[in-house]
Amino acid sequence: MHLDKSPLAPAQFPDMPDIDGVQMWTAETGAKYKNRPDILLVRLGGAAQVAGVFTKSSAPGAPVDWSKARLAGGANGGLLVSAGNANVFTGAQGHEDARLMAGFAASALGCKDNDIYVCSTGVIGEPLDLGPLSKTFAQNSFMNTQANWAQAAQAICTTDTYIKGAHGQAEIGGAPINICGIVKGSGMIMPDMATMLGFIFTNANIAQPVLQSLLSAYCETSFNAITVDSDTSTSDTVLLAATGKAAHELITDVNDVRLDEFKEALRAVMLDLAHQVVKDGEGAQKFIKVCVSGARSAQAAKAIALSIANSPLVKTAIAGEDANWGRIIMAVGKSGERADRDKLAISFGAFLVAEKGARAPGYDEAQMSDYMSGNSLVVKVDVGVGAGEFTVWTCDLTHGYIDINADYRS
Amino acid sequence: MHLDKSPLAPAQFPDMPDIDGVQMWTAETGAKYKNRPDILLVRLGGAAQVAGVFTKSSAPGAPVDWSKARLAGGANGGLLVSAGNANVFTGAQGHEDARLMAGFAASALGCKDNDIYVCSTGVIGEPLDLGPLSKTFAQNSFMNTQANWAQAAQAICTTDTYIKGAHGQAEIGGAPINICGIVKGSGMIMPDMATMLGFIFTNANIAQPVLQSLLSAYCETSFNAITVDSDTSTSDTVLLAATGKAAHELITDVNDVRLDEFKEALRAVMLDLAHQVVKDGEGAQKFIKVCVSGARSAQAAKAIALSIANSPLVKTAIAGEDANWGRIIMAVGKSGERADRDKLAISFGAFLVAEKGARAPGYDEAQMSDYMSGNSLVVKVDVGVGAGEFTVWTCDLTHGYIDINADYRS
Repeated sequence: MHLDKSPLAPAQFPDMPDIDGVQMWTAETGAKYKNRPDILLVRLGGAAQVAGVFTKSSAPGAPVDWSKARLAGGANGGLLVSAGNANVFTGAQGHEDARLMAGFAASALGCKDNDIYVCSTGVIGEPLDLGPLSKTFAQNSFMNTQANWAQAAQAICTTDTYIKGAHGQAEIGGAPINICGIVKGSGMIMPDMATMLGFIFTNANIAQPVLQSLLSAYCETSFNAITVDSDTSTSDTVLLAATGKAAHELITDVNDVRLDEFKEALRAVMLDLAHQVVKDGEGAQKFIKVCVSGARSAQAAKAIALSIANSPLVKTAIAGEDANWGRIIMAVGKSGERADRDKLAISFGAFLVAEKGARAPGYDEAQMSDYMSGNSLVVKVDVGVGAGEFTVWTCDLTHGYIDINADYRS
Repeated sequence: MHLDKSPLAPAQFPDMPDIDGVQMWTAETGAKYKNRPDILLVRLGGAAQVAGVFTKSSAPGAPVDWSKARLAGGANGGLLVSAGNANVFTGAQGHEDARLMAGFAASALGCKDNDIYVCSTGVIGEPLDLGPLSKTFAQNSFMNTQANWAQAAQAICTTDTYIKGAHGQAEIGGAPINICGIVKGSGMIMPDMATMLGFIFTNANIAQPVLQSLLSAYCETSFNAITVDSDTSTSDTVLLAATGKAAHELITDVNDVRLDEFKEALRAVMLDLAHQVVKDGEGAQKFIKVCVSGARSAQAAKAIALSIANSPLVKTAIAGEDANWGRIIMAVGKSGERADRDKLAISFGAFLVAEKGARAPGYDEAQMSDYMSGNSLVVKVDVGVGAGEFTVWTCDLTHGYIDINADYRS
């Protein structure tokens, strides 16, 4: 089906520099999509440090199993991503297919199968047909020209309506550092992690444990703080590769002050990518920031924020530009977390709509309608029992979501 | 907005007998709806035993607080239900309004305020305007004619597209027993309990603790086993009143064998009413039974079943008549409950679609499409780790849901 570009899409794909030590190629295997690349091959070249975060689904896809094992083994040869079929719930053959994909990439890059990460995204439960991929690698001509970031971002898309990338800069010990990330995802998006594949590359020289701890920490407030439809993918994978080509000493301590700028830049890139996923939420017309405060703990605040952000009634109300705070209260109430009904305060943007267990005295319906007609909204809720805070981002639930998802497989 | 009658509605409202000891009246206050009754007044007459189950929301409405306190105090004078405004998140005034409503009913029925249960359903967060209700009670002419079950069922509706009732019969100690129930609910429906009000009446003579234990137990597998949109209402209330008019001895033991027929009939009435709520799920086109087996425990099976039944991606796929078992696997995976991916088996109706971690060899797409075009579907999932089983019922997620909920308050 044809999908219009999300109205929340950024004006353009960012201008992103090459990362020293990263080579990329894309190709059209023709397996599912026409007139667009559907595989991405990345060479990391054997000197990189790689960190990864994977779906917490108890039914992960074969590529997730494969790549988790590679991460544990310190693989850093490269990466093959295919779009169109997720290779999930495909039994023993699925595992064999993931291994075969690694084999194709390894042959092309001149490394071992076990040095290659494999990610697949798309339909779940359909056996993978490796014929087109195998033919593409046999011809090999796609490796004559390296891909740019936009092509790489395109190659990993499924129902995405625009390509997603983000870029950050920093200095470590005087050396210029670039961070470039691409991501795909629009439906089946929910913490841990979203049907999301994300690949972030940097020329920094950082030891794997440090890299892993940064990736894991920043995931919590970026990719794990977004939701489109509460559905958790079986394929989610974010990989962060540091090629070590920058001219600074290896960083081995996560608290090293030389990392401060890099940390901030990495966090910003990850948050930017996460927001782009939500802004491409299937059918999304509005980008919604949900800030919960006053909860028993940050974890409780997150549970309440997700209860609000995942509520179909809240999301449809916002789609209808209706500041229906009653549904916010419902969602707080259903979260199971402690809240003081008689101290609850709710704002939309700068406008207080409810406080002390009732509608705010100054509530102005016309003013509120005007605010709700915007396409970027902030919902603030204070539940009045503690100091826990958390912010999540989501989108509204519209006819577009139904259109896309009631007719995806066909 | 005008809502077409759900295609899943029963052919007609059942023919239901009077219950000795129950008198009902309805009236049009005109507060919100036109040309339909919006209040239901019931006299129980002071000899009934009453059991109740309420929402577990941490932000319940004032009427829920009021009625819980009445239940604890053994109230049995009667019941006043109003539709259009839920009187939830309405602060101190909301509590005063619930008390005032009880007062109107108590004056009309000749009992004390504290003998009256109050239930309200509709918009959350708007102050209640008691003017129309007060005027209706002042005129009092609505009490000249008693209401029948259909009128009573109509008076409690909000977005319901049809009126809902169920009837059962039994004998206790040779005495004929009738059970008549009415229910409202279509959106904000999720265990504990659904935006649901349910009122069940019987002429049986059963002690309150026995009645309460039956109501609580059967709720678990009926009203607490249905979901439309995962959103838990702040108003949910089910009351079961036994007038004691039947000519048998008071039953004081829940294990009394004379109760066996009654138990079966009550359970059937409650399940029938619960199914009618799901069949009127906002926008519902398909009635879906989700049976999970092979889980670690019944509780785990319920968590998995609800994860499936609440998944927007599963529900939109079914709306699109797509046997997208991949999304079932996703929902099992996200439930957080233990499942053996390589032993998972999934059937739609009599057709096995997946087993042992992959698509079933005999899978026939055409056969499956034919099955999925029906409007009553069964999804069976065995997760392969234990003996826990649970069944829930839900409906599909369609454009109709968006239509209704993106424009409810206006």
